[in-house]
Amino acid sequence: MPTRYVLTGVAAATMQGSDGGYGLIADAAVVVRDGLVDWVGPARDLPADHAALERLDQGGRLLTPALIDCHTHVVHGGNRAREFEMRLTGASYAEIARAGGGIVSTVTATRAASEAQLLQAALPRVDALIAQGVATVEIKSGYGLDIDTELRMLRVARQIADMRPIRVLTSFLGAHAVPAGQDPDTYIDQVCLPALSAAHAEGLVDAVDGFCEGIAFSAAQIARVFDRAAALGLPVKLHAEQLSHQGGAALAARHGALSADHLEYATAADAAALAASGTVAVILPGAFYTIHETRQPPVQAFRDHGVPMAVATDWNPGSSPLGSILLAMNMACTLFRLTPAEALAGATRHAARALGLNDCGRIAPGLRADLAIWDVTDPAELSYGIGINPLHHRIFGGRA
Amino acid sequence: MPTRYVLTGVAAATMQGSDGGYGLIADAAVVVRDGLVDWVGPARDLPADHAALERLDQGGRLLTPALIDCHTHVVHGGNRAREFEMRLTGASYAEIARAGGGIVSTVTATRAASEAQLLQAALPRVDALIAQGVATVEIKSGYGLDIDTELRMLRVARQIADMRPIRVLTSFLGAHAVPAGQDPDTYIDQVCLPALSAAHAEGLVDAVDGFCEGIAFSAAQIARVFDRAAALGLPVKLHAEQLSHQGGAALAARHGALSADHLEYATAADAAALAASGTVAVILPGAFYTIHETRQPPVQAFRDHGVPMAVATDWNPGSSPLGSILLAMNMACTLFRLTPAEALAGATRHAARALGLNDCGRIAPGLRADLAIWDVTDPAELSYGIGINPLHHRIFGGRA
Ligand SMILES: [Zn+2]
Ligand SMILES: [Zn+2]
Repeated sequence: MPTRYVLTGVAAATMQGSDGGYGLIADAAVVVRDGLVDWVGPARDLPADHAALERLDQGGRLLTPALIDCHTHVVHGGNRAREFEMRLTGASYAEIARAGGGIVSTVTATRAASEAQLLQAALPRVDALIAQGVATVEIKSGYGLDIDTELRMLRVARQIADMRPIRVLTSFLGAHAVPAGQDPDTYIDQVCLPALSAAHAEGLVDAVDGFCEGIAFSAAQIARVFDRAAALGLPVKLHAEQLSHQGGAALAARHGALSADHLEYATAADAAALAASGTVAVILPGAFYTIHETRQPPVQAFRDHGVPMAVATDWNPGSSPLGSILLAMNMACTLFRLTPAEALAGATRHAARALGLNDCGRIAPGLRADLAIWDVTDPAELSYGIGINPLHHRIFGGRA
Repeated sequence: MPTRYVLTGVAAATMQGSDGGYGLIADAAVVVRDGLVDWVGPARDLPADHAALERLDQGGRLLTPALIDCHTHVVHGGNRAREFEMRLTGASYAEIARAGGGIVSTVTATRAASEAQLLQAALPRVDALIAQGVATVEIKSGYGLDIDTELRMLRVARQIADMRPIRVLTSFLGAHAVPAGQDPDTYIDQVCLPALSAAHAEGLVDAVDGFCEGIAFSAAQIARVFDRAAALGLPVKLHAEQLSHQGGAALAARHGALSADHLEYATAADAAALAASGTVAVILPGAFYTIHETRQPPVQAFRDHGVPMAVATDWNPGSSPLGSILLAMNMACTLFRLTPAEALAGATRHAARALGLNDCGRIAPGLRADLAIWDVTDPAELSYGIGINPLHHRIFGGRA
């Protein structure tokens, strides 16, 4: 594609507009120049000074912002298929633990993997997301739980952005799990905080994340990590209220977090707090589905309070081996009754906000020309299909 | 690929063996000759007369029978994304019906579509299944509900087999729904039975299906369709006990049906009857998931009675717009607690049986060389991943 052109013959879901809908322009034109959107509007209104540009007719297809997967763990070693099978053949939790199952097995496999091996394992996952129209992906550390491996995971995440046409935002997740036999406070002091400072010094950290849960870290422990993040000038986000109510959402709100993620056990008061702090609620139906959770996140409270909702895969080898952002959107609709417009906003506009980005996730002048062209006519089709990928073409930074 | 070769460097899940497991051969060799499997076994046992054949090393990947999707409605007009969105934005059933929603909308769109249009819409769906390693697909009629359109749907299904490297088995499903304003018995007499006879005379029918449900046809009405099938020498199968217990499973068993499908409301007595008649229980988690069903099919009763379980997509525009057999396998495990070995048998060995085929679905001498090579090492990975397609390569009738 040339560096300057007009996309025509598209219905454009700009994801602009204050009603939270698609911001649909039925017969749109989108002018792309130097990697950015220069103009968008009804084709009949295309300004005369753009009329001479090359026109790339898309045959009436749907155009959306490229998708954004704002919560993944795609850099990790091994998989947990054996544990999945053991559970389904009736093995007890203790038997699975004795066989090395659980997050420990991923930590062991990740520590044992070289940088090249981690990269080789992660690239097909990233390629699968790209093939679904994803242009921005967040990737977390958190399976090292030692300084070297946490940094290695983040270096691999950075390398991915050099090797593939995708933008990668990293989150340091040293406070993901307490290593076996260690005291959590000692771990925070001696591993997590030093790893964070070292990773930041190396330029590896875009945001700082944690897992506030009974099986992981308390709100007080996470607060210490967030304080270090603040000292380093880094934004924060949090796995909060996934399995029980631990005060993580309120903590995230107090710290002005970009996002609070999962939130099945969040309350209406949490929703009010997240709204006040401008924190995005990241909905992760893949984990809900996989672990047979029955409590749904308080979607109506998020709506009532005006909390923006993002939707992401949470792609990880344990609780959400979900490799499709489109399927995450369908699950958000089917399992949590999000509307298709909310699901698409969740994987575009609000996902950008969950990453602190304001240059993508919508189709508007001045934003990146990260665009997806779909073999559908109605944006609801993107959430309606289950395990179907109707991507026709992805444009990344203006380039095919 | 040559017409005669040996696949080596594979772990082969042959789906043979009496224990219902994978029939795994860790370091296998598979000799393919003239489209059939000629020999399979441990590589070290490869007979000397095969030693000179060309060897195609697969680098340690997993080899399975190609997958079989034994229950689909991939030939249809239109989609129901608008209805999906209306439901989620709070429209009532009556409002959706007034807007032309429900199966009526698919019947209207299918009747309005030409043969070429139905084919053009179906091919990308079939291509998506092929890309997941599917070599055999069942396709039903049932959105015409008039003689011409039922026949047109089946002609399109037959054409697909000419246009794509896939085997298509057709099911006549004239007894899918009662057209608005018609008496069901009159419809059976005046439309369904004449359509069946005409379709059979044209060679369009491999099996006869029906929907036995309160909102569709009674067991007595379906029995009349099955009697005509018997008179024509055609095997039968049935959508049974999906939304309520209607006696469909017992009816299917009495008629020696190839399969009874859905079965959420089937009983232990039904399981015993299906076992006695050798009828396969086809598990369709996509519809369960989409319609928020809470009652699960009696999987343990099927196991206890020795009813073979197949797994399929039920790909249709209303209750199961599910385009992935691998995701159907994951859903069968996650939602119904099938084991990954049961899920893989359900999309290979038992799916073949649900279609009356005994020349595919396993890797054994004399069977078709319909094979799938996967970028995984453990067959449990095929069911463990959600929305992930690890297919490396598919072999269809011995040909790449
Ligand atoms: Zn996570
Ligand atoms: Zn069906």
